[in-house]
Amino acid sequence: MAKDMTLLWGSGSPPCWRIMIALEEKQLQGYNQKLLSFEKNEHKSKEVLEINPRAQLPAFKHGDNILNESYAACMYLESQFRTQGTQLIPEGPAEQALMYQRMFEALSLNDKLSNVVYYNYRVPEAERHDSALKRNKEILTTELHLWERYMQKMKTGSYLAGKAFSLADVIVFPVIAYAFRFGLSEKRYPKLGAYYGMMKDRPSVKATWPPHWLENPHGGDSLKDL
Amino acid sequence: MAKDMTLLWGSGSPPCWRIMIALEEKQLQGYNQKLLSFEKNEHKSKEVLEINPRAQLPAFKHGDNILNESYAACMYLESQFRTQGTQLIPEGPAEQALMYQRMFEALSLNDKLSNVVYYNYRVPEAERHDSALKRNKEILTTELHLWERYMQKMKTGSYLAGKAFSLADVIVFPVIAYAFRFGLSEKRYPKLGAYYGMMKDRPSVKATWPPHWLENPHGGDSLKDL
Repeated sequence: MAKDMTLLWGSGSPPCWRIMIALEEKQLQGYNQKLLSFEKNEHKSKEVLEINPRAQLPAFKHGDNILNESYAACMYLESQFRTQGTQLIPEGPAEQALMYQRMFEALSLNDKLSNVVYYNYRVPEAERHDSALKRNKEILTTELHLWERYMQKMKTGSYLAGKAFSLADVIVFPVIAYAFRFGLSEKRYPKLGAYYGMMKDRPSVKATWPPHWLENPHGGDSLKDL
Repeated sequence: MAKDMTLLWGSGSPPCWRIMIALEEKQLQGYNQKLLSFEKNEHKSKEVLEINPRAQLPAFKHGDNILNESYAACMYLESQFRTQGTQLIPEGPAEQALMYQRMFEALSLNDKLSNVVYYNYRVPEAERHDSALKRNKEILTTELHLWERYMQKMKTGSYLAGKAFSLADVIVFPVIAYAFRFGLSEKRYPKLGAYYGMMKDRPSVKATWPPHWLENPHGGDSLKDL
């Protein structure tokens, strides 16, 4: 079935990684895939544009159905392959509520993380302000503390939405992994660190670990002081 | 059943409005609700914090289940009340794919819109640059043209994901309404204008129209030249 699927992806992009984890969890290995280089601007190629008019990665399709937004792709895959592989949406209303809530709070986490890690990339030099970067770091620190508290409230060894792995983990883990790659302290965020450590060993995560992260495990220090 | 639900909301906030439209569509009228004032900083009140640690509106709960993120609340309501009121997720894989794709592309639309409409609110005076606001407007214009093209490809009278009203409309419509409130030209974006006109008359939308928009139909001109 996965032969009907094509994924164009970039190494280390959380949205790409989410789809790859979801595909592994749903036992949809064997899809057509191609690793493209952001540095070489390959995400702006015609090949990508034919699937994704935004010229962004991921570009993903299943048959004629196009799902370039990572949340969309993950929701769709779970819906279309509900009984295959890992069940990614829990049955119970409480677990389901928590899963959806965390999944979508991750939009804030990801935004705030990007506003620090990619500040120089996103803001032209003439428009940069130390005050803005400082504020972005404070906002991110508050956000990270919120997630640390969320994890404190869960039982040891829990996933984000309870005892079962769910879409919340598929969506949020790549963002958490990013934070540690850019120097977040496991000492100051021990629950997030424990979650990161547990998830790193999950087969779907190991199988899809960004190849350039294997070569260069350390991404930078921009979150070291948070 | 809706007596188990509480919504704290602010007038004109797209995330609040989405939940209200979804509740109407799922025939969940009669929920406990309270209109709070952003201007009076009531979203930072203890009442909100008890439900939403982010001190943001909406703050929504169903029994003990908390769903403050509008996407989360809408997904949850559809999942928990699947057979009640309007079916918000289509059955067919193609319609479902398009629905999810548009729902999540709306995150970009909303971000880009906010980066123009709220530029002065978000960026402290000392950090503002005409070049940044100009770029934000160009980015938003490109985004709006993309949505206009999406609607061009649909049959006349279609909803965002096809002939049936869906979660995509619940999520995206408040953002489109915002754009026209801030002066977007129905002449330059005729398909978006037609969609706006059709949706405005939908009972769930009329029943939840932001009260302060009724008093002051025009929000501003910041999108007039786009």
